[in-house]
Amino acid sequence: MAIRRESVEKLLKSQITKWKTSITRIEPNKISTRGYPIEDLIGTLSFPEMIYLLLTGSLPSPKESKMLEAILISLSDHGVTPPSTQVTRLMASTGSTINNCVSGGILSFGKHHAGALENCMKLLQREVKEYKGTVDSHKDIKKIADVLMEKFVNNNHKIPGFGHRYHDEDPRAPRLIEIASEYGFCGIHTQLALAIQDIICEVKGIRMNVDGANAGILSDMGFDWRIGTGIFMIGRLPGLISHAYEEKTRESPFRKLIEIDEIYYDGVEK
Amino acid sequence: MAIRRESVEKLLKSQITKWKTSITRIEPNKISTRGYPIEDLIGTLSFPEMIYLLLTGSLPSPKESKMLEAILISLSDHGVTPPSTQVTRLMASTGSTINNCVSGGILSFGKHHAGALENCMKLLQREVKEYKGTVDSHKDIKKIADVLMEKFVNNNHKIPGFGHRYHDEDPRAPRLIEIASEYGFCGIHTQLALAIQDIICEVKGIRMNVDGANAGILSDMGFDWRIGTGIFMIGRLPGLISHAYEEKTRESPFRKLIEIDEIYYDGVEK
Amino acid sequence: MAIRRESVEKLLKSQITKWKTSITRIEPNKISTRGYPIEDLIGTLSFPEMIYLLLTGSLPSPKESKMLEAILISLSDHGVTPPSTQVTRLMASTGSTINNCVSGGILSFGKHHAGALENCMKLLQREVKEYKGTVDSHKDIKKIADVLMEKFVNNNHKIPGFGHRYHDEDPRAPRLIEIASEYGFCGIHTQLALAIQDIICEVKGIRMNVDGANAGILSDMGFDWRIGTGIFMIGRLPGLISHAYEEKTRESPFRKLIEIDEIYYDGVEK
Amino acid sequence: MAIRRESVEKLLKSQITKWKTSITRIEPNKISTRGYPIEDLIGTLSFPEMIYLLLTGSLPSPKESKMLEAILISLSDHGVTPPSTQVTRLMASTGSTINNCVSGGILSFGKHHAGALENCMKLLQREVKEYKGTVDSHKDIKKIADVLMEKFVNNNHKIPGFGHRYHDEDPRAPRLIEIASEYGFCGIHTQLALAIQDIICEVKGIRMNVDGANAGILSDMGFDWRIGTGIFMIGRLPGLISHAYEEKTRESPFRKLIEIDEIYYDGVEK
Repeated sequence: MAIRRESVEKLLKSQITKWKTSITRIEPNKISTRGYPIEDLIGTLSFPEMIYLLLTGSLPSPKESKMLEAILISLSDHGVTPPSTQVTRLMASTGSTINNCVSGGILSFGKHHAGALENCMKLLQREVKEYKGTVDSHKDIKKIADVLMEKFVNNNHKIPGFGHRYHDEDPRAPRLIEIASEYGFCGIHTQLALAIQDIICEVKGIRMNVDGANAGILSDMGFDWRIGTGIFMIGRLPGLISHAYEEKTRESPFRKLIEIDEIYYDGVEK
Repeated sequence: MAIRRESVEKLLKSQITKWKTSITRIEPNKISTRGYPIEDLIGTLSFPEMIYLLLTGSLPSPKESKMLEAILISLSDHGVTPPSTQVTRLMASTGSTINNCVSGGILSFGKHHAGALENCMKLLQREVKEYKGTVDSHKDIKKIADVLMEKFVNNNHKIPGFGHRYHDEDPRAPRLIEIASEYGFCGIHTQLALAIQDIICEVKGIRMNVDGANAGILSDMGFDWRIGTGIFMIGRLPGLISHAYEEKTRESPFRKLIEIDEIYYDGVEK
Repeated sequence: MAIRRESVEKLLKSQITKWKTSITRIEPNKISTRGYPIEDLIGTLSFPEMIYLLLTGSLPSPKESKMLEAILISLSDHGVTPPSTQVTRLMASTGSTINNCVSGGILSFGKHHAGALENCMKLLQREVKEYKGTVDSHKDIKKIADVLMEKFVNNNHKIPGFGHRYHDEDPRAPRLIEIASEYGFCGIHTQLALAIQDIICEVKGIRMNVDGANAGILSDMGFDWRIGTGIFMIGRLPGLISHAYEEKTRESPFRKLIEIDEIYYDGVEK
Repeated sequence: MAIRRESVEKLLKSQITKWKTSITRIEPNKISTRGYPIEDLIGTLSFPEMIYLLLTGSLPSPKESKMLEAILISLSDHGVTPPSTQVTRLMASTGSTINNCVSGGILSFGKHHAGALENCMKLLQREVKEYKGTVDSHKDIKKIADVLMEKFVNNNHKIPGFGHRYHDEDPRAPRLIEIASEYGFCGIHTQLALAIQDIICEVKGIRMNVDGANAGILSDMGFDWRIGTGIFMIGRLPGLISHAYEEKTRESPFRKLIEIDEIYYDGVEK
């Protein structure tokens, strides 16, 4: 196979630009992440500091690190009730490898499940951005919330981050808000989320859930909403792994979830 | 559809035992993980403490927590060189969602990639178990290592956890061993890993890599080898997410990895 | 654990309605799909007839079956150029199982890749539906195409199903249209796709690709656009499997896709 | 970034050999699979002929094509009883995309589920290969089966391809054997599977299932056992897609699979 001379440079250039990164540089016997040699990070940083460094490119302040730590813990497990955890366990029961089980769980994050954190971040950030420059008091925030609520109510849409199918009062939300207040992350986005709660709680008795609280706080910490599901996954992974492991080590394999007579067939007979 | 009376109890019983867990209890407005109300864990535990609690059922000592923290950081990224990261980025380039990209990365952990931590833990734990009761000095550990090495050399097998295709000396391994010594986790498994290194380094110039070091340490911390890939995933996830995010925000979508004339077709012509 | 009497019926009912299906009825030693005993289908139907039966609930006419067969073949492979195939092969190279490799490929179908069939079906069906009752001649179809094109051009959007990054003239499209004409499936949707081609080809020199042709034809066969990606996957799966198998049986495992010096690090130095 | 001259050829060569294939050649406006222009295959081949061509590199005989068609249909669905289908539907209920749902199903193929076809092919091919040259009568086959059975019984292992948790007599197996006899694919592997059935049925009342029958027949058709799960996936995909589609179009989204009081928590209380 003859190689035309003129394609050499084109190829080399395209090749190089295809694999470009600013995250971690690899050289023989050297690994440096965001500019720091890995051996200086191991044993020095906390895991949330490393996560923050990887995601944003710079080290967090102690308060940012503590806040992220609290957020990740708040997301880490919700027992066997989420479909993603049920999927993980069903797969573990078939003898699938633990990485397959975890992928199954992660892939179960759909329109109706586990997207609330990112969607609520998107919503809060968009609304705040639209009003930028004009928001300077609690009164303004209430106004944004009013307008927003009206849009949702008129379109009969659910607001992501509010309400929970197992809890009227999600115990994680007030605890997160409390910590955010302490560390100084109850900024405009969190206040907007709280203002939405005031309205929606009065009208429908619905409160902010873990995702609504985290959406406000993460936005006030400066996180782009596009990384919301990423942070959710980092928090939830230990839970999913624990469930896969529990299923594999405590339950008998290939369990029958349903018996034939529990299935209702409503198709045609021929 | 008539329901036979006698199947009611059977059904109820089967249903209940199907969804049994000791990880997190969910009640209306109450979430408790491993017995602790979630609001007592948020803002109190470190993330590695929460991970340890989820995986093992009990809280770690401060040293265990610090050690796990160092291990997770050591696993968190290796630039764009691992196939799993390349898969994650290729998928990000097609516009796949971030959870799909991460799943693609995780599903790339195959026989030849990313299994070394778990496989090395399995190996060390099996060898130590076999010699239990008889291992009481450094001399004995050297003997186990000798026998083990011979088995591998005779079968021409690679020992998982040793050697790296980009590094002769993986900078993460000695740093991890250093911290493990400080915290008291250089037990029999880690010593066995070091003894293997002594032999394999002399014979082939190959050294322990990050997985070999972590395999010894995690085993000495009491972790079952079956959770090895789980811990690897918790460590690596922030890296994978950073790469997916970088690809989505910095690169133009749907990049051509290859041009037609870079492909070599060696099939039949008709 | 005491079970309250009143929850029994609720439980049974919820359980039963949770697992309801009209696709296949399972009884001891009996399997019937869409009402037909499986032993009457095996050896009698063609595979596309079975696919049609599963997806729609009824048997196709001979022409529908032949058309679907041609469509599935047209989708079955495009060498190593698609990112989904590259992902499949990279994963095969790490030693991942063949179902993982195929999943990786399928999960690579993102906003910019492999969604064109479904998106084009959605577009054609929506436009035709909007004009229903009023479309009765070729002139009307041209009018719809004109309005549609203007919308896309004004918004600077690409129309799904037109243009291909490796082909100016996708050889699959005209062949599919030819067969559709023969079997009587060049209905209003296909004619709309052809009318769009007329305009876009004149303006930009871009032609209908395999997805555009199939989108028109499948719509004229009565398929809901929501099943578009499903049909794409059925067609493409044999190709993905062939690539995973070729990689596993012909190439050396864990290949280095990139050397360190091919990577461009543009992050910070510290 | 300076490029050293000597690395150019190395790079080009490595690049080219990295993307080598004998499946489909792509040139501008030309696609040819296994040497045949795609436009000659569309509308000419049956879908199983295309599958056979992709997987093996050559066209099947009419009997091989018909046999493969029957096999694919036999694998296509088993209602909502398989964990893989339950996972697919649970994921569809969360609003996951149809490719995610299908991936979830495929990733549920684990040690205890859906591997029987490939494992049985492996077993039959290994046993026949070991006795090659010496097997020339039905008596010999019975002898192999006897030896094999003893090994399994002594190790208390289940033989893949025999027994079914919902059927004593899987109706697909005898129908497949009947067709294989008609087309001439009841060769030595299928006869071995039948001989195993004779023994295991007498001893334990267990019969060959769909996988056992297909394992024998596919082996007699010349298929490598390593492609077994690939063929299973091609057959099952239309079923999985039908279930995802049914769930998405007939059921209300985000269904509660379990109520809180159906969960049994057996962890610690604090």
